[in-house]
Amino acid sequence: MIRATRFLLLLWLNAVIVPVVFAAADPLPSWNDTATKQQVMQFVQQTTEENSPQFVPVEERIAVFDNDGTLWAEQPAYFQLFYAVDRVKDEADKHPEWKTEEPFASLLKGDMEGVKKSGMEGVMKLVMATHANMTTDQFSQSVDQWMKTAKHPATEKLFTQMVYQPMIELLGYLRSNGYKTYIVSGGGVEFMRAWAPQVYGIPPEQIIGSSIKTEYQYIDGKPVISRLPEIDFVDDKEGKPVNIQKIIGRRPVIAVGNSDGDLAMLQWTKAGEGPRMSVLVHHTDAEREWAYDKESSVGRLDKALPVAEKEQWIVVDMKQDWNRVFPQ
Amino acid sequence: MIRATRFLLLLWLNAVIVPVVFAAADPLPSWNDTATKQQVMQFVQQTTEENSPQFVPVEERIAVFDNDGTLWAEQPAYFQLFYAVDRVKDEADKHPEWKTEEPFASLLKGDMEGVKKSGMEGVMKLVMATHANMTTDQFSQSVDQWMKTAKHPATEKLFTQMVYQPMIELLGYLRSNGYKTYIVSGGGVEFMRAWAPQVYGIPPEQIIGSSIKTEYQYIDGKPVISRLPEIDFVDDKEGKPVNIQKIIGRRPVIAVGNSDGDLAMLQWTKAGEGPRMSVLVHHTDAEREWAYDKESSVGRLDKALPVAEKEQWIVVDMKQDWNRVFPQ
Repeated sequence: MIRATRFLLLLWLNAVIVPVVFAAADPLPSWNDTATKQQVMQFVQQTTEENSPQFVPVEERIAVFDNDGTLWAEQPAYFQLFYAVDRVKDEADKHPEWKTEEPFASLLKGDMEGVKKSGMEGVMKLVMATHANMTTDQFSQSVDQWMKTAKHPATEKLFTQMVYQPMIELLGYLRSNGYKTYIVSGGGVEFMRAWAPQVYGIPPEQIIGSSIKTEYQYIDGKPVISRLPEIDFVDDKEGKPVNIQKIIGRRPVIAVGNSDGDLAMLQWTKAGEGPRMSVLVHHTDAEREWAYDKESSVGRLDKALPVAEKEQWIVVDMKQDWNRVFPQ
Repeated sequence: MIRATRFLLLLWLNAVIVPVVFAAADPLPSWNDTATKQQVMQFVQQTTEENSPQFVPVEERIAVFDNDGTLWAEQPAYFQLFYAVDRVKDEADKHPEWKTEEPFASLLKGDMEGVKKSGMEGVMKLVMATHANMTTDQFSQSVDQWMKTAKHPATEKLFTQMVYQPMIELLGYLRSNGYKTYIVSGGGVEFMRAWAPQVYGIPPEQIIGSSIKTEYQYIDGKPVISRLPEIDFVDDKEGKPVNIQKIIGRRPVIAVGNSDGDLAMLQWTKAGEGPRMSVLVHHTDAEREWAYDKESSVGRLDKALPVAEKEQWIVVDMKQDWNRVFPQ
């Protein structure tokens, strides 16, 4: 009986004491002890402590994150574009017409300036040539394969190693406080679903992004979903709150972004009743990452920064607020 | 010490014994003890018991349900149409042109045959006139108000009392076994979100349906999402697997429907690898509900029934399998 008592007492002590010890550990070790970290943690505490006047019921705790430039890097170009480039190179033999057709011709000559000159129309051609005319399963496998070996041209790291460690911690901290974490990105939804669940711990059904049209078909007697070379929805700027309402159906409590493409999402979030937190990540660290804002063609941050300052949103200064950028 | 021991022992006994007692209680009391119920429960046990060869990890346990005719009744017309009719009547004073314009003119005269004659084009006109040109918040409030008082023309019950009690039990049983329950319906997504979370315990972000286009705008300095009179997506037939892939991003393990509009979703589900269950509800009970299948203009079940029989899906015979249809 004494042994049983001891055992039960231990169980009981574990139940009471262990959570206290865990709570005392820093959930955001890659964040410096600046006002930014304090504001973020205070907001989470205020919205999750049951007797708090700012308490938010667990089912309403929705946190949305942009991906490119917010959860992982986006320079010198969106990483999804590197996938398109590699696929064009892989498929060039089957497409002799690409030797003379822009932007393929420039791309195959390694002339990225020539590709840029083809503008949005050129990018769309690249995306359609490399993201469509296959089933969703085939596309997902192709991205998965590529992610395992493709390297970033400047850092020579795998792209999945260029996620932001402080953001991985923030995602985990929010989830451990009952927040449901979502990605709401201009990137392709199926592109992200191929790797983001493993890397961020965010399940496919909480990933929202741009999409191309798809079609339900039978191939060899089996149903498949085929990807068509036609834009379905661009999940950027005003498209973000539109998609949040369409797919999630409730207004987020927390929104995190880094560019003008996130402005509407951040404003939509803050305009809700009750406690809301909008966070803008400012790329200020040319040494450990990149420093850019209103002059950048990728992830431009021009209109959103003055709004954030005026409305007193939380602005993350990567250089000041983060003691580490990428995972070790 | 003895008192403490007793207390801890009680805690421990509770932890061990209470779940066993609960497990012994019938989770589906409104289902008769037929083969249908046994097959459903066996599938759930096999996919959730950890040592089972059919075990499905909890994050993959997705169950999708059609709504009209599957979770609630759909005769003599989809309930959403009654909402449209009531709104036309309410708004008629502001629209003198409706006195001569079809299908409004017939509707206002109470001539439902005349409304039917206007066909799909007429129904679309009704939907656009009553579901668009307002913000999502305004629409949601309007549906919420209507649901509290509008009565079904035949039963004189509130529409939310015409949900199927056996299905409410099945939803709860699946959730208590780690399944994430979704609605995937031809009905309007925002129409359902106004009441389905309370009635079915399914949160807004797990409700998928047809949608009209929306626009992010500023009205009086506040951001709103406005509903436009234009179809965005029809979540019916092949649209169901397309939307499941687009929004959920994984194939369901369980799909439940009742009409040809659900056939593609049921086939898509069953065609996945590993254990999958497709369930077809057959309306066979003219006394307690309605009996209809291949001749019905609402919820037609013509093509899907022979497929279900041939492929050995589970077919629910409402008359035989349910001892109660509606909640008391």
